[in-house]
Amino acid sequence: MTDETEAEGHRQKMAKRKEVQDAEVASKTVTEKGLLLVHTGAGKGKSTAAFGLVLRMLGQGRACGVVQFIKGAWDTGERRVLERIGPLCEWHSMGEGFTWETQDRDRDIAACRAAWDKAREMMAQPDLALLVLDELCIALRYKYLDADEVVATLRARRPGLHVVVTGRNAPAALTEVADLVTDMVPVKHHFAAGVKAQAGIEF
Amino acid sequence: MTDETEAEGHRQKMAKRKEVQDAEVASKTVTEKGLLLVHTGAGKGKSTAAFGLVLRMLGQGRACGVVQFIKGAWDTGERRVLERIGPLCEWHSMGEGFTWETQDRDRDIAACRAAWDKAREMMAQPDLALLVLDELCIALRYKYLDADEVVATLRARRPGLHVVVTGRNAPAALTEVADLVTDMVPVKHHFAAGVKAQAGIEF
Repeated sequence: MTDETEAEGHRQKMAKRKEVQDAEVASKTVTEKGLLLVHTGAGKGKSTAAFGLVLRMLGQGRACGVVQFIKGAWDTGERRVLERIGPLCEWHSMGEGFTWETQDRDRDIAACRAAWDKAREMMAQPDLALLVLDELCIALRYKYLDADEVVATLRARRPGLHVVVTGRNAPAALTEVADLVTDMVPVKHHFAAGVKAQAGIEF
Repeated sequence: MTDETEAEGHRQKMAKRKEVQDAEVASKTVTEKGLLLVHTGAGKGKSTAAFGLVLRMLGQGRACGVVQFIKGAWDTGERRVLERIGPLCEWHSMGEGFTWETQDRDRDIAACRAAWDKAREMMAQPDLALLVLDELCIALRYKYLDADEVVATLRARRPGLHVVVTGRNAPAALTEVADLVTDMVPVKHHFAAGVKAQAGIEF
């Protein structure tokens, strides 16, 4: 098969796909709703994509919030810009470092509980369009928060509010009620090749 | 096993992991280098994570560029904010719509070629820290651009320049030379449940 024939084949396939997609879109009757999005997996991009959504939502002139359950120093880059953008974005880093660094379960639980209180407070803001609960999955994974309570609260949120939850090992209780779950799978990572964390890429 | 015992087990495992990671980091001798990052897969988050990286890099005060090979209307949100942030971010939407919409292969090729020329022009800017080549994989997939030429040019770029390439079906020629490849796998998607594209989430 020549490249030209192959390309023509693709073109026809894409035209067909477009047709199917158009029909699908036309058939959709479900209207707008606040989504529960989960970015999980061991790959890079979970928090980054969440902050990309914040950027997108801010571009639509809607208010966003970020609560970080496990503070990471590498988040200073985006935090700096988002804070500069203005009052539409409210950012709270509530974690006190990674649990395997602090070695203090009680302190970790208290920090996660405070972050969760802040998250609930923000969910009550009537104008908030998007809330990022960064690394909440980690807090659930180590049972620093009660998954049933968290999931019930997320489900009971205001219908128009979008929530993005990030972190490895999203619990099934969460993914079951989520509207979107993306698993970020690391196919290749530069850390394995000995390249260190760099400004603008990792933080 | 009680929750408490399990949590303690995790804590010990994490402490061990921290030890291993610290040793690994300490052993790394490779210094900073411009990375070639590829976000591929059928899941949501490829471009969003790329724009999140732009946000992060801008927060570090470094210049970024975006070239969109296949223009998507849903990108207006982030584009709007990034342009507002100031002169550090340069954005070019060079595509003319999806190929399955235009049905004009010659026009598509011309548009991709113009986008690629723009990308090469931006790669030559000595102060650029990060360049996003959004949906370049699609242009390669449909052979609108020559993959060998693109890969050779990317490999020959200035050593300090980070490049993010997004799009489904990243060709092997590209992933082979990439430093990081993340496969965004859709576990669940709200479109399947009939929820339409919404401002701030999809565009």
